[in-house]
Amino acid sequence: MKAVVLEKKGVINVRQVPDVESPGPGELRIAPHTVGICGSDLHYYTHGRVGKYVVESPMILGHEASGTVLEVGPGVTGFKVGDRVALEPGIPDMYSRAAKLGLYNIDPSVRFFATPPVDGCLSEEVIHPAAFTYKLPDNMSFGEGALLEPLSVGMWAATKAAIKPGDIGVVTGAGTVGLMTAASALAGGCSKVLISDTSKEKLDIARTIDGVVPVDITKEDLIARVNEETDGWGADRVFEASGNLKSYDNLWKLGAPGNTTVIIGIPPSGDVPMDITEVQARETRIENVFRYANVYQKAIDLVSSGKIKIGSFISKVFDMDDAKQAFDRVAEAHPEDVKIQIEVD
Amino acid sequence: MKAVVLEKKGVINVRQVPDVESPGPGELRIAPHTVGICGSDLHYYTHGRVGKYVVESPMILGHEASGTVLEVGPGVTGFKVGDRVALEPGIPDMYSRAAKLGLYNIDPSVRFFATPPVDGCLSEEVIHPAAFTYKLPDNMSFGEGALLEPLSVGMWAATKAAIKPGDIGVVTGAGTVGLMTAASALAGGCSKVLISDTSKEKLDIARTIDGVVPVDITKEDLIARVNEETDGWGADRVFEASGNLKSYDNLWKLGAPGNTTVIIGIPPSGDVPMDITEVQARETRIENVFRYANVYQKAIDLVSSGKIKIGSFISKVFDMDDAKQAFDRVAEAHPEDVKIQIEVD
Amino acid sequence: MKAVVLEKKGVINVRQVPDVESPGPGELRIAPHTVGICGSDLHYYTHGRVGKYVVESPMILGHEASGTVLEVGPGVTGFKVGDRVALEPGIPDMYSRAAKLGLYNIDPSVRFFATPPVDGCLSEEVIHPAAFTYKLPDNMSFGEGALLEPLSVGMWAATKAAIKPGDIGVVTGAGTVGLMTAASALAGGCSKVLISDTSKEKLDIARTIDGVVPVDITKEDLIARVNEETDGWGADRVFEASGNLKSYDNLWKLGAPGNTTVIIGIPPSGDVPMDITEVQARETRIENVFRYANVYQKAIDLVSSGKIKIGSFISKVFDMDDAKQAFDRVAEAHPEDVKIQIEVD
Amino acid sequence: MKAVVLEKKGVINVRQVPDVESPGPGELRIAPHTVGICGSDLHYYTHGRVGKYVVESPMILGHEASGTVLEVGPGVTGFKVGDRVALEPGIPDMYSRAAKLGLYNIDPSVRFFATPPVDGCLSEEVIHPAAFTYKLPDNMSFGEGALLEPLSVGMWAATKAAIKPGDIGVVTGAGTVGLMTAASALAGGCSKVLISDTSKEKLDIARTIDGVVPVDITKEDLIARVNEETDGWGADRVFEASGNLKSYDNLWKLGAPGNTTVIIGIPPSGDVPMDITEVQARETRIENVFRYANVYQKAIDLVSSGKIKIGSFISKVFDMDDAKQAFDRVAEAHPEDVKIQIEVD
Repeated sequence: MKAVVLEKKGVINVRQVPDVESPGPGELRIAPHTVGICGSDLHYYTHGRVGKYVVESPMILGHEASGTVLEVGPGVTGFKVGDRVALEPGIPDMYSRAAKLGLYNIDPSVRFFATPPVDGCLSEEVIHPAAFTYKLPDNMSFGEGALLEPLSVGMWAATKAAIKPGDIGVVTGAGTVGLMTAASALAGGCSKVLISDTSKEKLDIARTIDGVVPVDITKEDLIARVNEETDGWGADRVFEASGNLKSYDNLWKLGAPGNTTVIIGIPPSGDVPMDITEVQARETRIENVFRYANVYQKAIDLVSSGKIKIGSFISKVFDMDDAKQAFDRVAEAHPEDVKIQIEVD
Repeated sequence: MKAVVLEKKGVINVRQVPDVESPGPGELRIAPHTVGICGSDLHYYTHGRVGKYVVESPMILGHEASGTVLEVGPGVTGFKVGDRVALEPGIPDMYSRAAKLGLYNIDPSVRFFATPPVDGCLSEEVIHPAAFTYKLPDNMSFGEGALLEPLSVGMWAATKAAIKPGDIGVVTGAGTVGLMTAASALAGGCSKVLISDTSKEKLDIARTIDGVVPVDITKEDLIARVNEETDGWGADRVFEASGNLKSYDNLWKLGAPGNTTVIIGIPPSGDVPMDITEVQARETRIENVFRYANVYQKAIDLVSSGKIKIGSFISKVFDMDDAKQAFDRVAEAHPEDVKIQIEVD
Repeated sequence: MKAVVLEKKGVINVRQVPDVESPGPGELRIAPHTVGICGSDLHYYTHGRVGKYVVESPMILGHEASGTVLEVGPGVTGFKVGDRVALEPGIPDMYSRAAKLGLYNIDPSVRFFATPPVDGCLSEEVIHPAAFTYKLPDNMSFGEGALLEPLSVGMWAATKAAIKPGDIGVVTGAGTVGLMTAASALAGGCSKVLISDTSKEKLDIARTIDGVVPVDITKEDLIARVNEETDGWGADRVFEASGNLKSYDNLWKLGAPGNTTVIIGIPPSGDVPMDITEVQARETRIENVFRYANVYQKAIDLVSSGKIKIGSFISKVFDMDDAKQAFDRVAEAHPEDVKIQIEVD
Repeated sequence: MKAVVLEKKGVINVRQVPDVESPGPGELRIAPHTVGICGSDLHYYTHGRVGKYVVESPMILGHEASGTVLEVGPGVTGFKVGDRVALEPGIPDMYSRAAKLGLYNIDPSVRFFATPPVDGCLSEEVIHPAAFTYKLPDNMSFGEGALLEPLSVGMWAATKAAIKPGDIGVVTGAGTVGLMTAASALAGGCSKVLISDTSKEKLDIARTIDGVVPVDITKEDLIARVNEETDGWGADRVFEASGNLKSYDNLWKLGAPGNTTVIIGIPPSGDVPMDITEVQARETRIENVFRYANVYQKAIDLVSSGKIKIGSFISKVFDMDDAKQAFDRVAEAHPEDVKIQIEVD
């Protein structure tokens, strides 16, 4: 079968790879239809590694996928050939101590698409556990199905924030994760969400989400604006989605007494500063997010019901044969791009 | 000043009563503008009592109010004469053990408008603590301001439900409380909310809330429909808002494993049946609601942002001098009525 | 191998049954050492059924077991032959929707020892998943290891109660589950726990748990005593562990404003009365318990550290060959008995 | 009346000050009996300031107090002259937005004993709100009553940690706050608590708390020991109680997947490092503690029941006339001292 293979740092080929086997018990054989390109895919391409994960042999890229069921493994119920589906890309050991607690995303033994040495799903076929596969309703496109993966990060952030109906939120950073978080926080109960960035293009995209208040921090003080929008109380829920250390200059002053601040962005350096005076004065609760758990179905329900609109976040779609161009487009970091996707079939 | 006085069971007069005093420290003098009629107001009118609370001397009716600040008491900050405001009608002892815990609504010593022997606010002026008074934004009408009181019941139910983004909800009963709960649950994170009733008129009103799935239980089995809408999983959050014992025949079978069921409706009998087999099999968490706490500002924010639309729930508005007709209209229980309001000025 | 077989209602034989197979991937072969007799075991013996579960063919009894590892299946880490272990008796499908959420105990497909048609563990050998097997520290006996099963019910009740340090608890019913719940609630943060019963013998046993206040409700009013012990505030956490409908006469009046009431006992009838006036006035949170999840290791840690003392709850131990006498002893319901156990080897 | 007055940095006098007034509505007049010396008292003495709070005129010191009721103000119920009591030293505006939410400790307008310009309670008489005064049971001494204040910090940390029964805890730092936190965490549900320090004397004191595992980090690696004590899983609950930046080198690696880490200690610098890789990998929840709320009564109940033993933490008691010596003793920082107290009468 054909796949998009990262041979080594900087070298992508669309070429033949061995076919997949038949699905085992509990598994499905799936034909990926649309696969989005994530920052981590790009990083493997441009740097050959992400943190401790190093590309040491050719690896199929891609982990944001939707597709069609080709074959149903033994013992699987609820799926049939031809079902349109989305794939949750991390496969934990469900018998681990973390998974038994419901924390399957932080099981250290999780196998995740396109994380060396595990192959991704930019290929004509993949084998995937039915328990981590979700049926797409008729009113969702394959493109939206593939977008569920980054949306799930925002959904998980909004879930861990334990938003109360009517809370006011702030998201720092209007990149893909920031947009997904803002949309999730609004669908998840916020009355409004301020979102800050330095890019006019990003803020213009953010502005299209109903309920978002874009704040251009090249022109406006974020703390002042938050106080103005909250009658001096501060934000009930704060989300750091930029991964930019500069964001921490203000971060701990944005929240109200008793606020929850959720850290999603991953800064280049390992340490970020926590301003102890500010977090203690507010008794800030800080939540940290690693991927997501148990949100795929809920994300589908919110998109299908129209409470989250993500279709416009698909900026460009490339054919599989043009995968290299797609990755190069992502590498160019056009500010008006949210998500670049590749169609496999 | 003029007020709407329940002289005794069945007898309402609009007549002069003594003027209010000047506001004390922390208090405001307010001119009520719009006051809604609640089921409890009606019950005092038709039965002369609600439970243990008996009308033993003339009492001013009304507790769902918005109005205008006339005078600001000593030490009050954040308000000025002319501010348009909504009034949270229960005044707790903030130094009680319950209030110190944030549970001020269940402080046994709370004083609540129009609960004998405490007067209500269907009068030209009232004194009210600034801490329980909330400014209305320009885009909210006095009518919407008065509706915040019943909305707060729904908001509190949605808050105690601890909805996760994308949860699917069911509300039993499409009366005022059911509608307010459905609207709050949707604004508070539900992807959709099924609402059941036997009245075509009530369901037609419910249908106007974006995200509501009306279920006519004279024609359709609610459990079957919930299973259909949730792929057999059950509802994540269940709200009993009918106060009808019949609702309990199905109630405990609507929820998914690990669901939360919130009881809001008050049935005539003191005991309701809990089906132990069903609630244990699902480990159902049951939350009970008594009025509300800390939700007025959040309700304002959701109405002001357009995430909750309540304007259409105002079915008819009467002048203060026609207060008796207003109460009689409520007593007639027109199924197409949601809320009847009285304008004081 | 030899096993204790319930041939049909009323007929127990200790006899040969087919040997177990070799352990599969992730499994252990274990020689049970001590197995406690539970009320459900007894009920199968005396009634041939428990609710919808009917004994239709011979079934090995027993689900409260400790033992020794005989063989380690492929892929299992952390165990070796000779390890002394306790067995968590329910085996869920870890890929079910409930299990993914951490709610593996309420996965409808769970297979539980000695629940028809699944055999129990009163036999010389069993196969069991390593993920549901826990090593016993040197300072715990096999008898204590087998007691972990009923203790886990109390631990789960105490866990779901979300006790705050210093909370005052009440447990209704001083049977095995009541004692286990009281011990767990005290180890789990309660400053004291009142426990009510009508049996002097049960209360005398309860009295031996440090921190328990026994209340003989044939002589004393439980509500009055709770109010006295809490300065009129009510209990922070209430546990119904009697399964007796009479307990519900008082139950909803025992709790403080904002209390959590946990239902553990299973009454014969399916419906129990919830006094809506009382639970709404306090906004009581009600939690329901079905077996337990993720508490075995924590129970071991509390017993091993001496914070929970359960050794004295082992009232009598029978040899496997005397299993029928053991069951008859349980059937006689001696009030001074807490737990009767059978030693297999 | 006589009081211990900090005239300015470094100058303490025991001298006459004006008598207090009569208690107003809701207030009590109290004769302090025992007052402990806190690190903040010392810091005002040695540095003339704590953070933004500067001693600009003479101030009575002390905020850890127990005493006897001398006079009961209008409207107060539940107290009578002669009652032995403990005083919760922070007096919030109970009508603030934070206090209405139950977060009265982080109300920015709180007035706290011995925080300039508010006087403390090292005087013969004080006026105090009844709502923040707690009766001591007969089996608690005045010394223990005064210790409730630092104990409440530990209690609040244990409360915010939301300990589950049987959790394993780690406390970094065995000073007064560390000891109080360890004792609270054990009473609040932990099966055992590791506590780290570099001082042999501090660890020897910690060792006397039943359930504590002292770890001398001059000799032993804390991470290795935590892994050993938790079978490689990590600690369920981590408490930073040292206020030492060095503690952060290890802090984020001590917790298990899904752990909660509570920050109590206040480092000299405003920023502490949060290792984003470690906290994201575990999805660590971080809670911050500022003083305490709603724990005084629960602390009393745990001390009175014997679950927390604090009597031995009173290292030395001075007469009021020797207050300067008492402060100088604290300034000398004897490692074997936990708490130095002053008796007023």
